Amino acid sequence: MQGLMQNWPLLCHKLLDYAAENHTGREIVSRSVEGPIVRTTYGQMRQRALGVAELLDRDGFGEGQRIATLAWNTGRHLEVWYGAMGIGAIYHTLNPRLFPEQIAWIMNHAEDQALFVDLTFMPIVEKIASSVKSLKKIIVLTDSAHMPETKLANVVAYEDWLAEARGGFIWRNLDENAAAGMCYTSGTTGNPKGVVYSHRSNVLHAMIAAMPNAMGISCRDVVLPVVPMFHANAWGLGQSGPMVGAKLVMPGGKMDGASMYELLDTEKVTFTAAVPTVWLMLLQHLEETGKKLPYLKKVVIGGSACPRAVTKKFEEVYGVEVIHAWGMTEMSPLGSLCTIKPEYLDLKGEELLAVKDKQGFAPFGVEMKVTDDENVERPRDGKTFGRLKVRGPAVARAYYGGAGQDQFDEEGWFDTGDVAHLDQYGYMQITDRAKDVIKSGGEWISTIDLENLAVGHPDVAEAAVIGVHHSRWDERPLLVVVRKPGKEPTKEDLLAFMDGKVAKWWLPDDVAFVDEIPHTATGKIQKITLREQFKDFRFPNDV
Amino acid sequence: MQGLMQNWPLLCHKLLDYAAENHTGREIVSRSVEGPIVRTTYGQMRQRALGVAELLDRDGFGEGQRIATLAWNTGRHLEVWYGAMGIGAIYHTLNPRLFPEQIAWIMNHAEDQALFVDLTFMPIVEKIASSVKSLKKIIVLTDSAHMPETKLANVVAYEDWLAEARGGFIWRNLDENAAAGMCYTSGTTGNPKGVVYSHRSNVLHAMIAAMPNAMGISCRDVVLPVVPMFHANAWGLGQSGPMVGAKLVMPGGKMDGASMYELLDTEKVTFTAAVPTVWLMLLQHLEETGKKLPYLKKVVIGGSACPRAVTKKFEEVYGVEVIHAWGMTEMSPLGSLCTIKPEYLDLKGEELLAVKDKQGFAPFGVEMKVTDDENVERPRDGKTFGRLKVRGPAVARAYYGGAGQDQFDEEGWFDTGDVAHLDQYGYMQITDRAKDVIKSGGEWISTIDLENLAVGHPDVAEAAVIGVHHSRWDERPLLVVVRKPGKEPTKEDLLAFMDGKVAKWWLPDDVAFVDEIPHTATGKIQKITLREQFKDFRFPNDV
Repeated sequence: MQGLMQNWPLLCHKLLDYAAENHTGREIVSRSVEGPIVRTTYGQMRQRALGVAELLDRDGFGEGQRIATLAWNTGRHLEVWYGAMGIGAIYHTLNPRLFPEQIAWIMNHAEDQALFVDLTFMPIVEKIASSVKSLKKIIVLTDSAHMPETKLANVVAYEDWLAEARGGFIWRNLDENAAAGMCYTSGTTGNPKGVVYSHRSNVLHAMIAAMPNAMGISCRDVVLPVVPMFHANAWGLGQSGPMVGAKLVMPGGKMDGASMYELLDTEKVTFTAAVPTVWLMLLQHLEETGKKLPYLKKVVIGGSACPRAVTKKFEEVYGVEVIHAWGMTEMSPLGSLCTIKPEYLDLKGEELLAVKDKQGFAPFGVEMKVTDDENVERPRDGKTFGRLKVRGPAVARAYYGGAGQDQFDEEGWFDTGDVAHLDQYGYMQITDRAKDVIKSGGEWISTIDLENLAVGHPDVAEAAVIGVHHSRWDERPLLVVVRKPGKEPTKEDLLAFMDGKVAKWWLPDDVAFVDEIPHTATGKIQKITLREQFKDFRFPNDV
Repeated sequence: MQGLMQNWPLLCHKLLDYAAENHTGREIVSRSVEGPIVRTTYGQMRQRALGVAELLDRDGFGEGQRIATLAWNTGRHLEVWYGAMGIGAIYHTLNPRLFPEQIAWIMNHAEDQALFVDLTFMPIVEKIASSVKSLKKIIVLTDSAHMPETKLANVVAYEDWLAEARGGFIWRNLDENAAAGMCYTSGTTGNPKGVVYSHRSNVLHAMIAAMPNAMGISCRDVVLPVVPMFHANAWGLGQSGPMVGAKLVMPGGKMDGASMYELLDTEKVTFTAAVPTVWLMLLQHLEETGKKLPYLKKVVIGGSACPRAVTKKFEEVYGVEVIHAWGMTEMSPLGSLCTIKPEYLDLKGEELLAVKDKQGFAPFGVEMKVTDDENVERPRDGKTFGRLKVRGPAVARAYYGGAGQDQFDEEGWFDTGDVAHLDQYGYMQITDRAKDVIKSGGEWISTIDLENLAVGHPDVAEAAVIGVHHSRWDERPLLVVVRKPGKEPTKEDLLAFMDGKVAKWWLPDDVAFVDEIPHTATGKIQKITLREQFKDFRFPNDV
């Protein structure tokens, strides 16, 4: 027997419809790429998003097609998401921090049909556009006054294009399981893998994220998503913001301490979210200027482990609650958030900070377990660690094109590739990575890519890269090298060789020359041993 | 193109699984029907609910069958809900305040197969059991020591029955659109109509209810649902409580001021919900004893309009935030909640209380509009009222058996039968029932507004307003008044008192003084009877 409740599919454009109807005049404030602060409202944004939908439809784009974005967090970027989803197309966020060749590879793999791009990233597009055969149209997120010179074909200024909308467009009827968004993970091995969000998963994730056990945001909040929309959906804030009618403050391309502070202060931001690096810059700015944070109530910190000193400073000096969080692109991305349960409510000082070192507990909608390599669940004792596996309505069941099948088991569990333990109250803490990815300032660096590059140098016999602690970036890569007999390459030689072949910030901070690199029985580099060997190593640039 | 996210159906038993795994030791405290306060935890409740599921299955009950409950809010009642849903059966809450004949009619209409009943209600069951042909088993929610004498067949004590469970039962795999619960509305006309909730609607409703814009509850809350589980799902708290891991305090059968206060105080309740009558009793108890409410933070008040004096006392005397709410059995039941938007945050005193007189705004997941009789939407100006219509994933699309089809239109809107206006920020206020509103010369007059005004006169004990035929205006208001003992206000006194406080043309054309105004079983004014009583009335000005 079926229930007799309404068939009301969970569709993303309903989030914006809701905001436009119930929080009509609430603002979306953006630091525009052109410079000035610009303001719109949910009511206006819905009209513009409908315009985007109408024109994409007019221009021949439609259901199931991938519409790429290469853009900062702005109101324009957000309305493009909703416009694309509203015709059943799929917004596909590209990470501008990747190497242009990687971006091109990803665009070709996704077969992106159109690209919305910020002025900042036009040089990347100039380089790669011709190699992306599926690409039919490039819309530059600016007006005609700011349009750059370009030799590319099929390029238009967003505001000119949008002005062509006639109005009266109606969102398409869609299945809630239809694809809505796409984001590639830059994995440690092999090619990037595409995660395909559905309307349903995005809406459920937005609901999960807004709950008081998680982010706990309401229409009374002013939300500043520093975490980029190209970094796992800005942790869902582009959806949960409209869902609760929060005022949104979008930082554009400026994430330095002074710029952050300016927005936090002038817009009276109550809630923000970013990786630890951003907060280190903000805290430094506050210390240098003696400024305070009178409006800010909560800050969500994730992407990499939050240093205790950051939590301590926010909570004890500035009176801002820190919510340490963990997630993955494959999880939409929220997995756990460290809000405080009654069992820990009476803790103070270092004891409380020790709890806040953990990545928190799973909200309803995320199932979590820690197992050994034989899939046997490990005790929830706060110390026994194992492979962290998850399930839920906003967790991927596969990658686009079928890559990485071994990460999904037949019971639906996704192996996160992280290693963690759970305590008796369900608080999870990441202790290691199953694969040895380096997390530097919240971004991932592939050790294998660096190793492959280094061994390309004619004087290198073997190379390994490990993450070594760095007080500013959490971790930085150390390149460990065995030289070929009779050859004497210097640190400078090797770094010069690698320079330009990977993103600048991927370059190892130092090089150590050794006689031998330890190996496992099957010939793999034994990174555990190597890390043990360099446990007291300190980078020259780490003061 | 479909998304590649997990197929993770929204099933009610996952709420309890979640609570048992992540908030294992959190308590459910009940005032038992036998007398003592009893305690269990989510971990234990899940085991017992699995026992209920196993035994229902063993006893031949299964998917799609209706399992009735006639019970107070207790841990036992809640675990029976989850046990029944976990095998795909449907919990069907019966309202013990109805006449036994109505309960029997409803049970026969629903074809209830089993009945879980509290000791309190055994006399009702003794009366009606033989007339409910579908009923195969009666489980009395007590242990053998407290079992009453009964001549009924197939009766068993719950604890004896539950002790037979072997354990190891696994929840059934179910479609999220499968029926999960059932509740009949006791309309003022015609037969009761059955609303059939699905697993999906219950889970989505629980998520909507827990949001900061709505109830805003977390694992740090101690939640006391005074509103009965047989009254529209205890406003969803039996589902949103486990979903967030809140401690639950279940009041059993005692809702008087002293009993309420005892639980609020000893269990340190932070959040509670009930109809205004309960709060009038509590406030009276507090005034008589001089006690305070140091732990209570929020109280949700709904079911009927909350008098301003109640809101004022809670907020200004006891420091408790009042959330005025509106809903219907057909809406699972939440429709709107009066939390405060930024636009109203600076209001104080009577201005703030005037906003809190409103029933609040719709959360995401509830669409709301107000129309005239031709389905044309009316302006959101805070005064133009019309028929209130709603849509959403937790709103009924039909009644069981197909009754009341005319309340649902082809676009999916459900006509609530309420008359209301919406303001520019989306705040809704109920002004009347559609069948009570007076249509005078094509304009609508709110009987509730006139009644509230009339009872403000010091000599009036009770007042009702009905529309009576008028040959020129179609209908005009007649004010029906019960005078206070020893007082003799005249028609002219009352009309002079009301003059200037409403539009001139709203003023009643006449006043009738009566000894008594008829009431329904639940204490509401029975306007049908009153209209019948005055059906031959003719206004003096009607020539």
